[in-house]
Amino acid sequence: MTDNEVFSRNKVLTIDTMNPTVKKVEYAVRGPIVQRAVQIEKELREGVKKPFTEVIKANIGDAHAMGQQPITFFRQVLALCSYPELLNDNIFPEDAKNRARHILQACGGSSMGAYSASQGIDCVRQDVARYIERRDGGVPCDPDNVYLTTGASDGIVTMLKLLVCGEGASRTGVMISIPQYPLYSAALAELGAVQVNYYLNEEKCWSMDLSELERSLAEARKHCNPKAICIINPGNPTGQVQSRQCIEDVIRFAAKERLFLMADEVYQDNVYAEGCQFHSFKKVLFELGPQYSNTVELASFHSTSKCYMGECGFRGGYMEVINMDPEVKAQLTKLVSVRLCPPVPGQALMDLVVNSPQPGEPSYTTFMKERTATLSLLAEKAKLTEEILNTVPGITCNPVQGAMYSFPNISLPKKAIKEAKALGQAPDMFYCMKMLEETGICLVPGSGFGQKDGTYHFRMTILPPTDKLKILLAKVKEFHQKFTQQYS
Amino acid sequence: MTDNEVFSRNKVLTIDTMNPTVKKVEYAVRGPIVQRAVQIEKELREGVKKPFTEVIKANIGDAHAMGQQPITFFRQVLALCSYPELLNDNIFPEDAKNRARHILQACGGSSMGAYSASQGIDCVRQDVARYIERRDGGVPCDPDNVYLTTGASDGIVTMLKLLVCGEGASRTGVMISIPQYPLYSAALAELGAVQVNYYLNEEKCWSMDLSELERSLAEARKHCNPKAICIINPGNPTGQVQSRQCIEDVIRFAAKERLFLMADEVYQDNVYAEGCQFHSFKKVLFELGPQYSNTVELASFHSTSKCYMGECGFRGGYMEVINMDPEVKAQLTKLVSVRLCPPVPGQALMDLVVNSPQPGEPSYTTFMKERTATLSLLAEKAKLTEEILNTVPGITCNPVQGAMYSFPNISLPKKAIKEAKALGQAPDMFYCMKMLEETGICLVPGSGFGQKDGTYHFRMTILPPTDKLKILLAKVKEFHQKFTQQYS
Repeated sequence: MTDNEVFSRNKVLTIDTMNPTVKKVEYAVRGPIVQRAVQIEKELREGVKKPFTEVIKANIGDAHAMGQQPITFFRQVLALCSYPELLNDNIFPEDAKNRARHILQACGGSSMGAYSASQGIDCVRQDVARYIERRDGGVPCDPDNVYLTTGASDGIVTMLKLLVCGEGASRTGVMISIPQYPLYSAALAELGAVQVNYYLNEEKCWSMDLSELERSLAEARKHCNPKAICIINPGNPTGQVQSRQCIEDVIRFAAKERLFLMADEVYQDNVYAEGCQFHSFKKVLFELGPQYSNTVELASFHSTSKCYMGECGFRGGYMEVINMDPEVKAQLTKLVSVRLCPPVPGQALMDLVVNSPQPGEPSYTTFMKERTATLSLLAEKAKLTEEILNTVPGITCNPVQGAMYSFPNISLPKKAIKEAKALGQAPDMFYCMKMLEETGICLVPGSGFGQKDGTYHFRMTILPPTDKLKILLAKVKEFHQKFTQQYS
Repeated sequence: MTDNEVFSRNKVLTIDTMNPTVKKVEYAVRGPIVQRAVQIEKELREGVKKPFTEVIKANIGDAHAMGQQPITFFRQVLALCSYPELLNDNIFPEDAKNRARHILQACGGSSMGAYSASQGIDCVRQDVARYIERRDGGVPCDPDNVYLTTGASDGIVTMLKLLVCGEGASRTGVMISIPQYPLYSAALAELGAVQVNYYLNEEKCWSMDLSELERSLAEARKHCNPKAICIINPGNPTGQVQSRQCIEDVIRFAAKERLFLMADEVYQDNVYAEGCQFHSFKKVLFELGPQYSNTVELASFHSTSKCYMGECGFRGGYMEVINMDPEVKAQLTKLVSVRLCPPVPGQALMDLVVNSPQPGEPSYTTFMKERTATLSLLAEKAKLTEEILNTVPGITCNPVQGAMYSFPNISLPKKAIKEAKALGQAPDMFYCMKMLEETGICLVPGSGFGQKDGTYHFRMTILPPTDKLKILLAKVKEFHQKFTQQYS
């Protein structure tokens, strides 16, 4: 080889030589529309004239970025754990100091800078277990079944990784709802697993139909080996809260069809609608009796990022595994050990969530006030969003029963659909992109989550402050009417 | 299906049905010996009599767990970022407050609880870029090439993930040193890539030989498609610091052979030996001239976990990519977006490391005192470890030039080797396990890192406090002599 040949080389790593499964990954929540939003923000800063003065991001469940305030107690304890010298001052209440001591004594060298056990700090897992027991009315929880994670995403990807094997018609299939949260499709694409879609029933407020599960599974069995079913409850992006009956149906279905259950329950405190209640899969599983609770394999996921905390940046979370084969559990523990441990500040925060101030403790009143205020405000905004969207001709919005999102159905004129397709864009991507350019509102098109063919949606968070949310909804209304007129 | 059939089912997920690549993963640093150490600690707490009163863990580079103190300034800023109300008090110096404001203004809603950009907070990436430029004597660094990560491990796994493709003889091969840090072998096993071993030269203080690289590559090309070479410098587990000449050789080799370079430089401040100096691959690459600096693809990795910080629990880190194909970079950005973002407290800490107190700032003197004290102590302990180990007949230890580990060669009697093999154990695992049971010292056998056939080693960190380190080394000496006698 001559020097010129050496140096005129093409790259080693190109779009053609790279991992093909990575190329298949898509993640709409941070996709092209969000990238354009970031660009527009930059243009605005540089003085480019636009028909609006700011971008309103309703694309991601990022509560603090939308102005939600952190829980005072949690942040006091985190400050104490970061700089334990503060334990000697009198600026923080005693219960905050006690929690900090509780966490620090469990850290190597009493420092959040030490690695923890790969499964997570022992005492945090014990606190998580007691929290789950309280939540589920006494159903026992073994801390050995609890794994702390780097956000819920990490736990979900890890569980999927364990499940995937086989080639061709025996390749692992995983059932996910459509619409779905695109972490699932992205992880399945990356792992080369088969995504098996089951459709939520939009007419019945995004509930799950047993017959649809059966259809989906029968279809999938023709070309892959379906081994697991994922449920997000309360729903993302669809904001429904599944009924107890529905959860029971899913568990019976999983038992009958030999499916591993994955329950994404990160919105468990985000339930707003009258008559709706959060039921954990674990609790319902145990209520169905030992023939279910001793056999059905379940992994459930929680996080510090949602609920009233909204602490996304800390990447805290846990998963609980039930009825997992001990050999597989040993493999799981080994697998998580390669990444050493979840971030310790996130573990500390998870501990505070499951071990929050109790009646009689100095921080209790403030904590409850803050928690209630945040959840009440979210409930108001959920109602407001549904109501205003439903006043727009051509937009139909199911009640936002829980979580942080509305996922309204939008009617798009045929001419708009045609124009979008000519541009090679999904029609709702075309719609959302136009809305962004004209109004500064950043939503995620329904096509990023999956939807029934021929239907169109967008996902919109209910997180902006009420005054901004009202402006946003008014602008959406105005845009939709203009858009409909323009393409009619 | 009858009810009994439903409920007597085997598990869905068993050792036979799970992902086979996960089963192949091994991670010695937290492997069986460490699990046994944890058990023994529990037994000691429960009052079980042992020939020792505590387990000394020298198995993992976990500085704070071994009593190293965090840098005061870093923790003050983290406390301020956790609980910004502290900005209103006068307990922290002005430069700490300024750094906290600098970080918080770049967070969504001025909160570490908001998600950051997936690539990492903009201003942190800018600070990293300026740090790299200073470190490399002015070689330019574009913040767009910097990705913040969840520890260095996360960056390394992500890069390997991008690189892997093909089947059979065209499957991607990745060259790694033997001995190696087992994250590499674990990640390659999980990704189903081919691990291509090149051996470090123990006789020449674990340096890299060009002829060995050539041998290894030629061998590998017979059965796979080698696309990348990984180097750890300063070395883990071997503690060497590669010479400038050696790094130049590796770069020329990578250029000539069309290999993507991965430089793991997490120990860049941990250089102790006279005459040794850290040379970044990036700097040497640019010093070789544009024919190299414009073509060779390089990813280099750094972390908050090592050096003088030792902040493992925060899972902070970054990687810089050079000459990466823009299409591939877009894929990389997309891939990291699925996990949303690295933990923000870890990003904040990374910012402090690359933007530490400067002369004239109130915290400068204390910062420098703490930094220097930690590094000097490590240098002393490196020397002490080498010296004492070399007094033991049958143990030969290369100088610990850098990083945090010694990796001595141990002579094992034939009878011991035979007994180990009869038990199905690697001989150095047999040795280390016996040492743990008899002395309470937890080391990692060389077989967990790879070594030349017929040689045996262990990895021992130099992190225990000096008095404990002396006890540990005396116990190792005593044990080795006893073991040798017993099996001779």
